[in-house]
Amino acid sequence: MQDVSSSQRAIHWHQQSVDGEARARLKQQRPVCLWLTGLSGSGKSTLANLLEASLYDKGVHTYLLDGDNLRHGLCSDLGFSDSDRTENIRRAAEVAKLMVDAGLVVIVSFISPFRADRAFARSLFEPGSFFEVFVDAPLQACMQRDPKGLYAKAQRGELKNFTGLDSPYEPPESPEVHLRTASDSPQECVEMVLRRILATPLA
Amino acid sequence: MQDVSSSQRAIHWHQQSVDGEARARLKQQRPVCLWLTGLSGSGKSTLANLLEASLYDKGVHTYLLDGDNLRHGLCSDLGFSDSDRTENIRRAAEVAKLMVDAGLVVIVSFISPFRADRAFARSLFEPGSFFEVFVDAPLQACMQRDPKGLYAKAQRGELKNFTGLDSPYEPPESPEVHLRTASDSPQECVEMVLRRILATPLA
Repeated sequence: MQDVSSSQRAIHWHQQSVDGEARARLKQQRPVCLWLTGLSGSGKSTLANLLEASLYDKGVHTYLLDGDNLRHGLCSDLGFSDSDRTENIRRAAEVAKLMVDAGLVVIVSFISPFRADRAFARSLFEPGSFFEVFVDAPLQACMQRDPKGLYAKAQRGELKNFTGLDSPYEPPESPEVHLRTASDSPQECVEMVLRRILATPLA
Repeated sequence: MQDVSSSQRAIHWHQQSVDGEARARLKQQRPVCLWLTGLSGSGKSTLANLLEASLYDKGVHTYLLDGDNLRHGLCSDLGFSDSDRTENIRRAAEVAKLMVDAGLVVIVSFISPFRADRAFARSLFEPGSFFEVFVDAPLQACMQRDPKGLYAKAQRGELKNFTGLDSPYEPPESPEVHLRTASDSPQECVEMVLRRILATPLA
């Protein structure tokens, strides 16, 4: 007999006495996932931090899942091959789902270059509780900014599978919000996101 | 050049504008991790649900990470070999850490049979914010309860690597709370946990 995977083994769902709705009620807010996708250097981290600070000021309970930071813990075993990127996004999406179930407004900031991976993330959420935010900047602009010096490193051949260079970025086809960080200021971008998600009040 | 793992690649920590302390202040509670460990059938799920309901009644924002439930999502790729069990606990611990950082009181309910894995979980938390709760019941009592029919299945040879039978359970040596579910009622056990963790108020 082989060891069996989780999906085959008898696993029971426990009916939890305190459910997502009860937690949201306690927090008096509508839990959602804001999924920021874009090239390295497009401005995701800057916007994620500004967004979180703005929401905090409104008394909204948030959490920021950041591609870089998550790789120090939950995803520290993963590299940057296509399959590892996919697994990285899968785990981030599953954690975001748990946190939304916990009642939080979760900001996810990942390059997340593949459409299929973002579609998987979206599939975990109820309609209306997942917002794909395309943080759009031309590759040239991102390479000029290069805040972490990574493009330079990749061009020197020191990094492979680098999104935008030797690994593809598949832009969203119908994101809930489309930000253009080369022409609009961070403040303007944050206001665009807030207007979109606050169309239905969060708190 | 080889693809590099996360630990080697240039990964920057983003200084987040809203930190754990700010989130805890917003929620007006002290985030902690309650880690329930014990044999299948020892009463972990029953106690976890009762604990969460009690804390909810006190206005504490909680989340329950359950071994079985997590295996439907984040850990759906893992089986029950020793190495998969270790990876399962590692991911649960990392998620619990993120949730405590998010300001929540997290109840983790996993068999978590290996001492080293629980020590790893503990190592992720600040002193005083991790409580190991040993849900202790004699193997014979667990086998008689067998709420999911798993011991029977394992004894028929239909499950392998079953904790307590052909896979070891290493009991905690100095848990913060030691519950004996064969002699004490679920309500008594929950009160013992609450007394211990509320020695310093949570909310």
